[in-house]
Amino acid sequence: MLIRDETGTQTLVGYVVDTSDPAHGRCYLDLGPQHLNRHGVLHGGIAATLLDNACGMTGSLSVDPTGMNPFLTISLTTQFLAAGLPGRVTATGTVKGGGRSLLYIDAELVHEDGTVIATSTGVFKRVPQEKLK
Amino acid sequence: MLIRDETGTQTLVGYVVDTSDPAHGRCYLDLGPQHLNRHGVLHGGIAATLLDNACGMTGSLSVDPTGMNPFLTISLTTQFLAAGLPGRVTATGTVKGGGRSLLYIDAELVHEDGTVIATSTGVFKRVPQEKLK
Amino acid sequence: MLIRDETGTQTLVGYVVDTSDPAHGRCYLDLGPQHLNRHGVLHGGIAATLLDNACGMTGSLSVDPTGMNPFLTISLTTQFLAAGLPGRVTATGTVKGGGRSLLYIDAELVHEDGTVIATSTGVFKRVPQEKLK
Amino acid sequence: MLIRDETGTQTLVGYVVDTSDPAHGRCYLDLGPQHLNRHGVLHGGIAATLLDNACGMTGSLSVDPTGMNPFLTISLTTQFLAAGLPGRVTATGTVKGGGRSLLYIDAELVHEDGTVIATSTGVFKRVPQEKLK
Repeated sequence: MLIRDETGTQTLVGYVVDTSDPAHGRCYLDLGPQHLNRHGVLHGGIAATLLDNACGMTGSLSVDPTGMNPFLTISLTTQFLAAGLPGRVTATGTVKGGGRSLLYIDAELVHEDGTVIATSTGVFKRVPQEKLK
Repeated sequence: MLIRDETGTQTLVGYVVDTSDPAHGRCYLDLGPQHLNRHGVLHGGIAATLLDNACGMTGSLSVDPTGMNPFLTISLTTQFLAAGLPGRVTATGTVKGGGRSLLYIDAELVHEDGTVIATSTGVFKRVPQEKLK
Repeated sequence: MLIRDETGTQTLVGYVVDTSDPAHGRCYLDLGPQHLNRHGVLHGGIAATLLDNACGMTGSLSVDPTGMNPFLTISLTTQFLAAGLPGRVTATGTVKGGGRSLLYIDAELVHEDGTVIATSTGVFKRVPQEKLK
Repeated sequence: MLIRDETGTQTLVGYVVDTSDPAHGRCYLDLGPQHLNRHGVLHGGIAATLLDNACGMTGSLSVDPTGMNPFLTISLTTQFLAAGLPGRVTATGTVKGGGRSLLYIDAELVHEDGTVIATSTGVFKRVPQEKLK
């Protein structure tokens, strides 16, 4: 399933979340001028936004296939490997370890031409259902 | 000096860069619904965007007071300490070490009520002038 | 209180843990040839060991002044700012945020001559007492 | 080739560096009581030491097969996924990106039973030959 415009930030930035692979949350964005920094390439903050979203969705999908179980980001380390040029970029998350409450999730942001633009590693916390109302 | 709308991302997100303190680049944002995640609080990616910008500007200001000397983000680690509720949030960077080419820069993102929302630590690289055309 | 030789690693490396300040766990080491890398300066792994210990003790001291309540390291990011030359180096931790279970703890490793050798930021988890037998 | 006792830290900790695979620096250690923390499992600092060494050697091997070209650690993020129980643990590094001066190198620390104990991602800097004497 593709999710668009679910949140304020998603509508603002324009990325699309893809929940079709239960093992890997994905998030893609077609880069426009509104996603670029003063060097004319993908802004690091937008890259981090995509990686963070892919990881959170990967965590949600590890609980159930609806992808609705929320995860909070505790810590996120992003490495900026290459400039993000115009085109479609896709972030894909993978669970590396963890338990019931905390998950370690890595992600890669890859340009449609195959270039790995950024990678991330982070700690994510499942939000207990009782806290959700 | 306050810088607005310098880049596509800045116009999109709406943050303001403050270069008036040569020792600390700053970047602030008045949070609206377009900056929130599915939990109704500041999206981690937007928080990372603000921290990243404050750090990059802190690097630039360490070279000269115009703040125009660009720095690239090599690596950024963000810790998400507290939820970002509506109001103004300000990211402030501080150089922790480094040399001519690489700088270690930390930053804090603080809500106007004093809550520290997130902190970051990162490695930034000065872009040589000859590479800038 | 100063703690020596509590664990295998502590005896091996030779660092001393200082629990006298309830707000900041400390850990110091007098550098000898056994702590150096192939460049003749403090090995990054030993630096990380000292920072990690200072943070864990800072977490313990936040629970009670005995410093015996254990914390596990979930994630640790270390920035290597300067070479560690012979002399005494001291790591000092500070709680930056968190709640009952997770703590965000930063630390600095400083040489006796005042040089900041390395900084760290990390996520630490309190080990529930019921798990400790 | 296996390298033992090259540096003070290596002799102290007892790990062995394996340079036989030009694409991946490796570093292994047979865990004894001197490598354990107060929980009786592998000390996080020793884990970081092994990961850091594997990454540095991976960088060196990317320059030439002697593995003698030194790399400095700029930043290292370690995620502690599982407890390290007695047995042999091996850290293996992989270059993820970078250029002539800086390399992004990831590593995994795996127990002989297949458990991934820790992962790391870091930034490493090649030491110019002219600086080496």
